[in-house]
Amino acid sequence: MAPSLPQTYTTLTLRARPKGSIVPGETFATNTTNTTPSPSTLSANQILYQALYLSLDPAMRGWLNDTRSYIKPVQIGEVMRGASVGVVLASKSSKLQTGDLVLTQSAGWAEYAVLDESACESVPDTGEGKRRSAIDALSVLGLTGLTAYFGILRVGEVKKGDFVVVSGAAGATGSVVGQIAKIKGATVVGIAGTDEKCRWLTEELGFDKALNYKAKDFAKQFREVTKPKLIDVYFDNVGGEILDLALSRAAPHARFVMCGGISQYNEAVQKGPKNYLMVVSMRIRMQGFIVFDYLKEYGAAREELAGWVKEGKLKRGETIVPGGLKEAEKALVGLYEGHNTGKLLVEVSELEDKAKL
Amino acid sequence: MAPSLPQTYTTLTLRARPKGSIVPGETFATNTTNTTPSPSTLSANQILYQALYLSLDPAMRGWLNDTRSYIKPVQIGEVMRGASVGVVLASKSSKLQTGDLVLTQSAGWAEYAVLDESACESVPDTGEGKRRSAIDALSVLGLTGLTAYFGILRVGEVKKGDFVVVSGAAGATGSVVGQIAKIKGATVVGIAGTDEKCRWLTEELGFDKALNYKAKDFAKQFREVTKPKLIDVYFDNVGGEILDLALSRAAPHARFVMCGGISQYNEAVQKGPKNYLMVVSMRIRMQGFIVFDYLKEYGAAREELAGWVKEGKLKRGETIVPGGLKEAEKALVGLYEGHNTGKLLVEVSELEDKAKL
Ligand SMILES: NC(=O)c1ccc[n+]([C@@H]2O[C@H](COP(=O)([O-])OP(=O)(O)OC[C@H]3O[C@@H](n4cnc5c(N)ncnc54)[C@H](OP(=O)(O)O)[C@@H]3O)[C@@H](O)[C@H]2O)c1
Ligand SMILES: NC(=O)c1ccc[n+]([C@@H]2O[C@H](COP(=O)([O-])OP(=O)(O)OC[C@H]3O[C@@H](n4cnc5c(N)ncnc54)[C@H](OP(=O)(O)O)[C@@H]3O)[C@@H](O)[C@H]2O)c1
Repeated sequence: MAPSLPQTYTTLTLRARPKGSIVPGETFATNTTNTTPSPSTLSANQILYQALYLSLDPAMRGWLNDTRSYIKPVQIGEVMRGASVGVVLASKSSKLQTGDLVLTQSAGWAEYAVLDESACESVPDTGEGKRRSAIDALSVLGLTGLTAYFGILRVGEVKKGDFVVVSGAAGATGSVVGQIAKIKGATVVGIAGTDEKCRWLTEELGFDKALNYKAKDFAKQFREVTKPKLIDVYFDNVGGEILDLALSRAAPHARFVMCGGISQYNEAVQKGPKNYLMVVSMRIRMQGFIVFDYLKEYGAAREELAGWVKEGKLKRGETIVPGGLKEAEKALVGLYEGHNTGKLLVEVSELEDKAKL
Repeated sequence: MAPSLPQTYTTLTLRARPKGSIVPGETFATNTTNTTPSPSTLSANQILYQALYLSLDPAMRGWLNDTRSYIKPVQIGEVMRGASVGVVLASKSSKLQTGDLVLTQSAGWAEYAVLDESACESVPDTGEGKRRSAIDALSVLGLTGLTAYFGILRVGEVKKGDFVVVSGAAGATGSVVGQIAKIKGATVVGIAGTDEKCRWLTEELGFDKALNYKAKDFAKQFREVTKPKLIDVYFDNVGGEILDLALSRAAPHARFVMCGGISQYNEAVQKGPKNYLMVVSMRIRMQGFIVFDYLKEYGAAREELAGWVKEGKLKRGETIVPGGLKEAEKALVGLYEGHNTGKLLVEVSELEDKAKL
């Protein structure tokens, strides 16, 4: 049964590399394409894809810079890169059926796309309906869940009794990091940007403590909370002042898991941690990682994460921005301003309609 | 046979914690003590010690700060801490004989001291006379030689084919680091502060290349030298701009051996590496260490180092400041100004006289 498709569809492309922060209306161009890709023009092994949820990620700011990194920059005029979950509208693939949910890194900021089956991953059924499975695939079982998993377990080598501090704790990655550390028997303090987020961390997610880094006496609170025991594992999502504080309160042989530094992403000249020489005196292992390096182990990790969710040990959190793809740019800016609790997604299209296909 | 001892002797004590650089005549006080410790007042297991060579170390600046570090600060009024090699003038120890050379961390900046035998290590005979053995014990077989050894082998895990860059390369630690890396089959570039030091590194020590970081186009030279191959192992003795450059030219999964940051030791507010987020994108393992952690393995390491020296694979370099203990303060300042090539020592007293004892 052929779906009825609209005559136009939207993509967002990179217009100008920002110097500092992303400027809505300037950094990206919104394009209306007149013909939606059509089922009849698919080649062998291709599918027609419609995006449902788009993942917004702090790293996106870095992809807009023309510098050497773990991934090549998005080019001017290119559709913005991004992970999304969508539905198969038509298929010439023997592996994918119309109506299937798929996860892809290849559609980018586009409502529709023609994709090769090799660019699609299947979305695990988490047993609570299609919508929940779609969200989980970008959230707790998505790249941020996997980042948390490999970061705290492999790089941080967290173990029972460790004293763990997580920055960006109420975000997609941080919230999962802290909960995994708790599962492994650590004591966990989270750092986040509002009192409400802090309450969510302690009351809902089971963190031992949470500190609001925007509080006036935050540095004092930080020193106090690290007085009974110095930090064994610091999981860094933000950099800046919080990283410096963590360095000053690191235990000998502490592990610093370097996941990201969102406080620096929009700075034209980034600031390094002035206390970095604690790395020498405290014999810190400060180690960076990129989740892609663990690609071969995603399957096993997702199974363990899904298991923890089922057992109620791992709570999920998402902030889903409604309104379609056109909201992506503003929503992305909001990520750097802390608008989200848990994983930030844009709802590109509602699942309900597609279920009818 | 009782030695004839002078009536007075000199010690240097900490007078005032410096804010920035050490100020000769202000930071330390020179004290003349009227009675030299005497052989007759020794208790059981004690020796009377006369210092011959005093080691000067960049870390000394850090010991003058009242901050948390790997070792407790030197207190105001306390004799300045430091390693030295000296001779046993009299002994009530069954392990040490008059005339023996000993290495100690306990005499500090003092011409004479009464030491417990447990505070003394014996000085290995390197087969080229007593004077050479005394110097070796503070240099290639001393803490800087050991630091180089454990740093590049254990923390850096250097292996054949690695591209290694060493900062502070013409210093005591750096010069040994580069040579060990060569022994292990790496390609080695050293960074040092004069053209003469650079020539010493390539022509005498066998470094593949050496760059003078004071050259106007140093950053350009650095980028060029790291163009054919990005950095696998960076051994950092200095921090600052050179560390930032190294970060910008790190290969994926590079190891950064964090040994010290002499460019920052005299700064009231230290500067962190602004390119530190390369740790994330290049998955760098940036790891600090303190040589003391390998205490139990010093013996085996010294044997291997001494073996390389004998085989001619490991060349030694020292700058020995004459003039006695009173020169220590000025000489220490010179260390931060690059006056030394290889290990910086102060000759406190000449060995010849002692040989008569
Ligand atoms: N290494 C990898 O493979 C990998 C993979 C995925 C993500 N990451 C990194 O992990 C980090 C978290 O990513 P995520 O996707 O989970 O995003 P997220 O944490 O869900 O969202 C970003 C959060 O960062 C906080 N934030 C923003 N600006 C800040 C500032 N100046 N100082 C402190 N906190 C600030 C905000 O919360 P507040 O209200 O608390 O400010 C915001 O909610 C990022 O650094 C990202 O680049 C790394
Ligand atoms: N982690 C440990 O256990 C351990 C143990 C021993 C030593 N260390 C560290 O290892 C490093 C080297 O110590 P060392 O005893 O072997 O001393 P060294 O290298 O023999 O002497 C210091 C050298 O540093 C260079 N330098 C001074 N200021 C500089 C600056 N602003 N920028 C760049 N280079 C500068 C000078 O040479 P130029 O002419 O090249 O400027 C000077 O000769 C130090 O950072 C020290 O703290 C660590």
